[in-house]
Amino acid sequence: MSESTDVVRALPITAADLALLIESGDRGPVVSALDGLDGAEQVLVVSRLGDEARAALLEMLGPEAAAPLLEHLPEPQVFEAIESLDPEIAAQILQEMPSDRQADVIGELEAADADAILESYDDEDAADVRRLAEYEDDEAGGLMVTEYLEYPAQATVAEVIEDLGLNAEAYADYDIQYAYVVDAEERLVGVLRMRDLLLSPRSVALRDVMIAAPAAVRDHDSLDDLVAFFDEHKFFGAPVVDDAGALRGVVQRSHVEAAVAEGREDDYRRAQGIVGGEELRTMPLLLRSRRRLSWLSVNIVLNIIAASVIALHQDTLEAVIALAVFLPIISDMSGCSGNQAVAVSMRELTLGVIRPTEVLRTVIAEALLGLINGLVLGLLIGLVAFFWKGNAWLGLVVGGALMLNTIVAVCIGGSVPLFLKRMKVDPALAAGPILTTITDMCGFFIVLTFASLILDRLV
Amino acid sequence: MSESTDVVRALPITAADLALLIESGDRGPVVSALDGLDGAEQVLVVSRLGDEARAALLEMLGPEAAAPLLEHLPEPQVFEAIESLDPEIAAQILQEMPSDRQADVIGELEAADADAILESYDDEDAADVRRLAEYEDDEAGGLMVTEYLEYPAQATVAEVIEDLGLNAEAYADYDIQYAYVVDAEERLVGVLRMRDLLLSPRSVALRDVMIAAPAAVRDHDSLDDLVAFFDEHKFFGAPVVDDAGALRGVVQRSHVEAAVAEGREDDYRRAQGIVGGEELRTMPLLLRSRRRLSWLSVNIVLNIIAASVIALHQDTLEAVIALAVFLPIISDMSGCSGNQAVAVSMRELTLGVIRPTEVLRTVIAEALLGLINGLVLGLLIGLVAFFWKGNAWLGLVVGGALMLNTIVAVCIGGSVPLFLKRMKVDPALAAGPILTTITDMCGFFIVLTFASLILDRLV
Repeated sequence: MSESTDVVRALPITAADLALLIESGDRGPVVSALDGLDGAEQVLVVSRLGDEARAALLEMLGPEAAAPLLEHLPEPQVFEAIESLDPEIAAQILQEMPSDRQADVIGELEAADADAILESYDDEDAADVRRLAEYEDDEAGGLMVTEYLEYPAQATVAEVIEDLGLNAEAYADYDIQYAYVVDAEERLVGVLRMRDLLLSPRSVALRDVMIAAPAAVRDHDSLDDLVAFFDEHKFFGAPVVDDAGALRGVVQRSHVEAAVAEGREDDYRRAQGIVGGEELRTMPLLLRSRRRLSWLSVNIVLNIIAASVIALHQDTLEAVIALAVFLPIISDMSGCSGNQAVAVSMRELTLGVIRPTEVLRTVIAEALLGLINGLVLGLLIGLVAFFWKGNAWLGLVVGGALMLNTIVAVCIGGSVPLFLKRMKVDPALAAGPILTTITDMCGFFIVLTFASLILDRLV
Repeated sequence: MSESTDVVRALPITAADLALLIESGDRGPVVSALDGLDGAEQVLVVSRLGDEARAALLEMLGPEAAAPLLEHLPEPQVFEAIESLDPEIAAQILQEMPSDRQADVIGELEAADADAILESYDDEDAADVRRLAEYEDDEAGGLMVTEYLEYPAQATVAEVIEDLGLNAEAYADYDIQYAYVVDAEERLVGVLRMRDLLLSPRSVALRDVMIAAPAAVRDHDSLDDLVAFFDEHKFFGAPVVDDAGALRGVVQRSHVEAAVAEGREDDYRRAQGIVGGEELRTMPLLLRSRRRLSWLSVNIVLNIIAASVIALHQDTLEAVIALAVFLPIISDMSGCSGNQAVAVSMRELTLGVIRPTEVLRTVIAEALLGLINGLVLGLLIGLVAFFWKGNAWLGLVVGGALMLNTIVAVCIGGSVPLFLKRMKVDPALAAGPILTTITDMCGFFIVLTFASLILDRLV
């Protein structure tokens, strides 16, 4: 029963004060200061320490306390801290983490830093982590853990129960719903449910208790493959095998779900223009600025291109200056309508109720809706224009343009994610700028062309 | 190992053909048609049936085949189908689903429909589902399942093992990592790890094997509370107790993670203007149109308000028509910069490295960045204006305005999510429109005021 999130008490200690305690080098006061904070407050305060103070804190706390704290810090700070610690100490802290997290961190470091840290590992563990670190973050090998129970097929139930008893402490952090059964070549041949152990005679060999030929995933299966696997199979974990069928690890349903959640949050951020990597306001100002500019500079060029349509029709605009008031409205409203269509296509792709090839189907469904919404919005803006200037023709031009451009916007918004998906470009990232550039150009063109056609009635 | 998502084969049967098979009333051909489809294709084809055909299909398949198919269909179609089925058949299908899903569906139906369906339940199950349906979807009670193992504290290890053996089939779908131990008043007093059963003498009572006074969550704990709980405790599931301490259900880590993922996807959709509830293009056109218009109509009013700033400065615009080209650029670029700041604040709130009260901290971090990015963007657009018209003053006005408004945009974008969070308004939903309205008004005001101040140098 955690504290309610509504009540936010003042922090018992600020990051600056904690940094002073750390600098004094005395472990006791630092530990009691941290103990006075709840989990959320610890994250808040420690995230605001300078990089050096944070590294000193982790070293001071010792591996067993440092590892769980690191698990809750933002990833960029974790990488930074591990990199700046003495390699031996970094290795001790890492080894308190699950194998997949160790591999995530090692995979992010410079090769030289990673090598230095892995020198403190024993050879087998170092090889394990290196192997894991080579997998992509979003494939089965990158999501699996190597903490699992594995027994040879000829072992007996009694032997397994004895092993569980002897190693109870070592297995404490394992997810042991299942144990995995392998042959002499390490190939996965069966899965053993722990509950079946309970109900089996002690002298029976595992091969007679296990579920033979179990469902498994391949180490290079994608996140989509894993989602499909766990949709189909009601398992809490899946064994991961390599091309030779050898058991390499276990990927847990909860890790797959967390990776999907992470991906969706990434979608949101990328759609909002955070594209150069995660940003925290504790990062160096110039790094933050450069990353944001990478997105803004593309957009400003696209904006200039779109606005050049206005420049080409300056004469019309000069004659009917009232149109200038409506250009930003048409631009923004078309963007809103188009973004709704983008979101529906993204959702339908996720749910699997549309295929990336079905552009025509999407365009038809959107065009009809665009006609209705365009009529409503066009009528509204047309009336505003009419009552403002007392000129019905102005209302007709502005309203008609918004109506037409709403249809254009929803058709483009609906189909752009499908095209991008087929071209393997991230729709969350690219759909927005493509959409707004095209709809802006179309919108400006339509309204200024309409106006130029009946210019004598507008002035 | 699921099929690669890259290769999309033509559908072996279309929705229209499947509908004809269903209409003919012959189960065999329908089942073999479905068997010819993989899981993703089944979802695609069945999602495109009309509501009536889909209900007829579910009835034809029978509860055991219908329930897993329903689990993969979009939620609005599930509710629609259950509502339109004969209540007795709907009850049979629902009872094949986990208790939390049953409650989700029952909670969405009209009271009369729900009552009709629950009449086919036995009394105890109906009361269970009603109780579950009363919880909010995103609190512990709404996420928990009632399929769990519960034993009295005085039961022996032998009795539990016997019960597990006798009811192996009934428990097949349970997550039985743990069993829960209760006293005579149903109050939770302990948790039993299944692996501890293995290692305990058979005659011992559970109270001597269990972990006493276990961590638990309350039935009205929020999703945030649950996330904090599972962050703190490395459990796969948590017992849920009511105010009297009585055990009511078990909430699983994976369900909490799925609910969080769902929430993040909702964030993305709401930020894109899908606000009136989930939309699928198979829904009625007018419903889709109305839902989208609910968002668009707010935005068009905000747009008109923002554009009124331009109308107030028509004279300036008339004198320097070139400015009209730059108004949409300033509007859009300020929106882009501001949205980046919104996304970073949303992320920092999620990570817990900023508190909703720390507006000043955010504004300072953003203002500095806005100054740098504003200088870069302002210089760029200023040079474009200068080279286009050969007027350095025009470049100064346009570039200076974009620079200033970039600072305004990032400060507002960074702090609006914090204010909204404090006011318990969804930041994903409201931050965008608030941001763009304010930055548009500021941007238009700044550029047109600057221009009016040095009008004689611009013309």
